[in-house]
Amino acid sequence: MADLYAWPALATIAALLVYLATFILVGRMRHRHKVMAPSTDGPEEFKRAFRIQANTLEQLVPFLASLWLFAIYVSALWAAALGAIWVAGRIFYMVGYFRDPAKRGPGFVVAAATCITLLAGALIGVVCRLFVLH
Amino acid sequence: MADLYAWPALATIAALLVYLATFILVGRMRHRHKVMAPSTDGPEEFKRAFRIQANTLEQLVPFLASLWLFAIYVSALWAAALGAIWVAGRIFYMVGYFRDPAKRGPGFVVAAATCITLLAGALIGVVCRLFVLH
Amino acid sequence: MADLYAWPALATIAALLVYLATFILVGRMRHRHKVMAPSTDGPEEFKRAFRIQANTLEQLVPFLASLWLFAIYVSALWAAALGAIWVAGRIFYMVGYFRDPAKRGPGFVVAAATCITLLAGALIGVVCRLFVLH
Repeated sequence: MADLYAWPALATIAALLVYLATFILVGRMRHRHKVMAPSTDGPEEFKRAFRIQANTLEQLVPFLASLWLFAIYVSALWAAALGAIWVAGRIFYMVGYFRDPAKRGPGFVVAAATCITLLAGALIGVVCRLFVLH
Repeated sequence: MADLYAWPALATIAALLVYLATFILVGRMRHRHKVMAPSTDGPEEFKRAFRIQANTLEQLVPFLASLWLFAIYVSALWAAALGAIWVAGRIFYMVGYFRDPAKRGPGFVVAAATCITLLAGALIGVVCRLFVLH
Repeated sequence: MADLYAWPALATIAALLVYLATFILVGRMRHRHKVMAPSTDGPEEFKRAFRIQANTLEQLVPFLASLWLFAIYVSALWAAALGAIWVAGRIFYMVGYFRDPAKRGPGFVVAAATCITLLAGALIGVVCRLFVLH
């Protein structure tokens, strides 16, 4: 009698932990380089951390919405599996970008492709529910 | 026996597609004007695209939360109808702003008014559920 | 027969109203200091308002996700109580930061600690659901 939705819930928490890691990174860089609020400008290393966090938020919102629509209208387990890929992609993105912005590509593409897969699947699932199954 | 919640789900997907369009726009402008990460500064055309994407995210989050609270506590169908207006408003905002920032007003106001309507309706629905209906 | 989830719904609406307040603040500062879109640079007072709004969004997304996972997998009433603390913390953050960025600390820490509590509780609740209770 397992609750299948607990799997996308776990993927959600993993994604939030990745986001938390980007927050800790930008906080450390703000401190290391003495970037005083409200400034968000500073040395390259700070700007990378700042953009990693901002981009993770930009991607997190459509990811979470797509993940849950996919979970509800297609499959909770497949949603969670795709969610795990997204989380792995974003970890690669974060680590790659911080070392060298030119290396942010692969992780970004993996996560973005996963998100679009979730969104496309959710669209098909919702359309089927509305126009096919009743 | 249609699932009424599939309608706000469809509105959610439409909103995510608008957001995806803003992402594609900023990616193209980043490429066209050779704005290298982590920089987010560049020619006017890039900055417009960047702000359109940022503002769409800023509005998307309260919109999605309000949409679903309204759907659950007031009406799923009305939520979806208001969601369609929001999506239309944001498309006008995007197109208008990119041509001329001074033209971002009407689309912004339509979407913001729709979001506030959803939020106010959700508040009334939740308060009724808590203090009136039991 | 009260709907317990209406309490975290009310906390969600309160959080969205705080976010709306940050929007109104940045809009007023944009107007007062004649900061023309797409610029986001301007006098100190504008930059503070801009960062308050941006940071509130950055925190709002993980807060809402954690709040609802906690509500579903741990307790709806405790989620709402912690949500009320988060909202109070963010109001202190907003007011403190706008007066003096050095005063943004306490409100930020209260809200961040609350969010991490919600996230940690949700993780425990989800893991129990998956691996203990079935």
